Amino acid sequence: MIKRLGAEFIGTFWLVLGGCGSAVLAANFGGDGNPLGIGLLGVSLAFGLTVLTGAYALGHVSGGHFNPAVSFGLWAGGRFPARELLPYIVAQVLGGLFAGFILWQVASGRGDFAVDPNAAGAFASNGYGAMSPGGYSLAAAFLCEVVMTAMFLVVILGATHRRAPAGFAPLAIGLALTLIHLISIPVTNTSVNPARSTGVALFAGDAAVAQLWLFWLAPLLGGALGGLLYRWLGEESPAVAAQPHTTA
Amino acid sequence: MIKRLGAEFIGTFWLVLGGCGSAVLAANFGGDGNPLGIGLLGVSLAFGLTVLTGAYALGHVSGGHFNPAVSFGLWAGGRFPARELLPYIVAQVLGGLFAGFILWQVASGRGDFAVDPNAAGAFASNGYGAMSPGGYSLAAAFLCEVVMTAMFLVVILGATHRRAPAGFAPLAIGLALTLIHLISIPVTNTSVNPARSTGVALFAGDAAVAQLWLFWLAPLLGGALGGLLYRWLGEESPAVAAQPHTTA
Amino acid sequence: MIKRLGAEFIGTFWLVLGGCGSAVLAANFGGDGNPLGIGLLGVSLAFGLTVLTGAYALGHVSGGHFNPAVSFGLWAGGRFPARELLPYIVAQVLGGLFAGFILWQVASGRGDFAVDPNAAGAFASNGYGAMSPGGYSLAAAFLCEVVMTAMFLVVILGATHRRAPAGFAPLAIGLALTLIHLISIPVTNTSVNPARSTGVALFAGDAAVAQLWLFWLAPLLGGALGGLLYRWLGEESPAVAAQPHTTA
Amino acid sequence: MIKRLGAEFIGTFWLVLGGCGSAVLAANFGGDGNPLGIGLLGVSLAFGLTVLTGAYALGHVSGGHFNPAVSFGLWAGGRFPARELLPYIVAQVLGGLFAGFILWQVASGRGDFAVDPNAAGAFASNGYGAMSPGGYSLAAAFLCEVVMTAMFLVVILGATHRRAPAGFAPLAIGLALTLIHLISIPVTNTSVNPARSTGVALFAGDAAVAQLWLFWLAPLLGGALGGLLYRWLGEESPAVAAQPHTTA
Repeated sequence: MIKRLGAEFIGTFWLVLGGCGSAVLAANFGGDGNPLGIGLLGVSLAFGLTVLTGAYALGHVSGGHFNPAVSFGLWAGGRFPARELLPYIVAQVLGGLFAGFILWQVASGRGDFAVDPNAAGAFASNGYGAMSPGGYSLAAAFLCEVVMTAMFLVVILGATHRRAPAGFAPLAIGLALTLIHLISIPVTNTSVNPARSTGVALFAGDAAVAQLWLFWLAPLLGGALGGLLYRWLGEESPAVAAQPHTTA
Repeated sequence: MIKRLGAEFIGTFWLVLGGCGSAVLAANFGGDGNPLGIGLLGVSLAFGLTVLTGAYALGHVSGGHFNPAVSFGLWAGGRFPARELLPYIVAQVLGGLFAGFILWQVASGRGDFAVDPNAAGAFASNGYGAMSPGGYSLAAAFLCEVVMTAMFLVVILGATHRRAPAGFAPLAIGLALTLIHLISIPVTNTSVNPARSTGVALFAGDAAVAQLWLFWLAPLLGGALGGLLYRWLGEESPAVAAQPHTTA
Repeated sequence: MIKRLGAEFIGTFWLVLGGCGSAVLAANFGGDGNPLGIGLLGVSLAFGLTVLTGAYALGHVSGGHFNPAVSFGLWAGGRFPARELLPYIVAQVLGGLFAGFILWQVASGRGDFAVDPNAAGAFASNGYGAMSPGGYSLAAAFLCEVVMTAMFLVVILGATHRRAPAGFAPLAIGLALTLIHLISIPVTNTSVNPARSTGVALFAGDAAVAQLWLFWLAPLLGGALGGLLYRWLGEESPAVAAQPHTTA
Repeated sequence: MIKRLGAEFIGTFWLVLGGCGSAVLAANFGGDGNPLGIGLLGVSLAFGLTVLTGAYALGHVSGGHFNPAVSFGLWAGGRFPARELLPYIVAQVLGGLFAGFILWQVASGRGDFAVDPNAAGAFASNGYGAMSPGGYSLAAAFLCEVVMTAMFLVVILGATHRRAPAGFAPLAIGLALTLIHLISIPVTNTSVNPARSTGVALFAGDAAVAQLWLFWLAPLLGGALGGLLYRWLGEESPAVAAQPHTTA
């Protein structure tokens, strides 16, 4: 169990360090309007690749959740025992916080480093309303996080289903996270992961902390919805389903 | 059957929400000329990843078409029964419309949200002539949609052929959709999928609806052509074909 | 044999239509300085995805060369019979020319479409000296094309080696072509493929045609070098090689 | 053994030529502020694809390290014999130097080619302080290189573990290198590989050479830490770990 929690700690550390790190250090490289920076596309790719690489490396140790909403949704989908939820989530949040700490150490190695706690997306934090990168309302932010997390769980449960092609799940799941970021960074800076939100909010300042509730509530709710939805879809898949498409 | 139709509904919902959502919310983030936005490259990637992730998650339930032109082309290619065409297409269109509805709810959470129904690509709609993003003629748009959909079907039928490597089809098919968008967004905003076009046209306004016929006709025609073309290519593949390349 | 040649025709058509089409239609979308366009990164991805998707779809029919330099290099590497070289190369060139024709039809559907035959990279043509996108000399262009094609063949021969993981070759080979473009578009607009160069040069104008010799000679030479190099590397691979890395 | 060293030479040549070549030739194509260039995102992708393609092509010959820190970390992780460390590292450094030489030949084929040895990132060199692309301190650079290389080794050791899905390791490892670049190019221009740093530093000038010690010390230290960390995590993985996630 200790190694599984270690793997969740390291994997979530990697997710937050890589995803938020690319946003803080590289998204806007060279200053406003400079196309050298990796932009939202690069940050989206980075988030996805943390999960893709982490899941190939550590998935066989811990299952590779790296996200409380994923653990919760897997429980809702009937694939994860309730008694392991709390230790997994604690390890994930600690991993996220450690990533926030390390990222702060690196970022502050630049002379002019400063975080404006009232700026949207400060230190890669999530937010709504005035703290939303594109100025989206609380309702839009909540809806977006619920739907994105629900679909994330559908992809996770579907791609790890025994009838899905073996070995491709980390690829599909990682790229699903990239896709979710491509859609929703402007809305909430994209959470779908309470550990990711918590890991940087404590460093970003009071405004981010004050909005943290939404980035626990909406992803957990969305994760549960996705888990229940797939539970219905995936059980007793009709045996003939894939035939028309996969045979010649 | 109900679960297969549910999978087609969800998969097409994901395709339209993810692809058109990235275009509406993130393509032009920060305003004209701001390189932070994901641009046509990010939108192309998003469309492809909706299919890649949806097909790994749901392909084993429904075959993972998510597109009337794909279902039609698979029928033309001898891989899908005619009696299932209509229910599949209805589920796909409903999924696309639900995605348009959800996307509208999220997008309108921004105070200054507005859709100009006469602007090319309004609310990620497809168009030709004055409604083409790059101002391409009806004839160019028609040719482009036919050729792109035909090649999409060649990739789908080829990558799911029993002699193709198992498990890689969703990867190849999803990335084919990314490729198609990299080429043709300037021409028609890229459809190759009547459900995707319909799902947003009803929200985009009258001009988009008035051009919707082309984005049913051309993809269905292209899908059938691709299906017939591969039917000829793929049947009775010569047993020696791959040998020079795949053995040492 | 006719189906194999048909697959090479279609695959090379797809390579030139997709790669050059993305360059002509989408690279500079919105005009100079507009970050919405897909740029060299998007074009690089498009070229690679034509091969990735084409090889998954058609590789089991024809081997998926889509490139005279690949066929020639596979012959040099001992994997392709000399007697099939000429028909394969003819099919590839015809596929490339058909792609140039279709691309011209689509591109000219825009009112202000025009090709300046003396501009570097006109209609996605390859060039050196004054026709090099970045103004690179003939010698640099020749060296670059030889080295890139040689390494392309090393990847092709290595990834299709019987000891390489099965099924991943189209992924590795397609992404190798993406990589090659990420490096060398500024030098020659990247050929490594005489059929690709020929397919658009005839439409680009006299200056491109006059430089076409280099984009036959250098890729064929590089392909042969890569084939011979891998022939030495890959034969009788030491049985213990991969063990330290792949076992736990 | 000679073929294994040849594979390491060629693979490291490809890594440095492709990664640093994309940076020197294509990152800033068209000049400052021109969005056509591939930017940091394109360079990140290029570095990752050199490893992805090199490992699929040559991994079955030599294990596909292409990096002294990887060889060292694999030794620390118990997967590589000490007696082979030195020859592997020599082959890698020579491959990197040959790549620097070839890249110089190509790059200097442009009339206005010049390298300012005191500019951060000159000829794709690594650096800290005044030589860091974003002006990051020595301490931040050291911390960043250690952490990135350690996580790189965790991914390498995890993805090649016998319980990880077979065949996907080159994909995960290559994309891990892309991810690392997406995060850390602004900090040090990203090394995590002493052979890559050495290969271009000798051409970049005295300032780069004077800082080379850090790009040997930090990656080797990080590699060893990652190797030891995974050794603890990966040994005797609990047999039940992956079950909740991978079965339906």
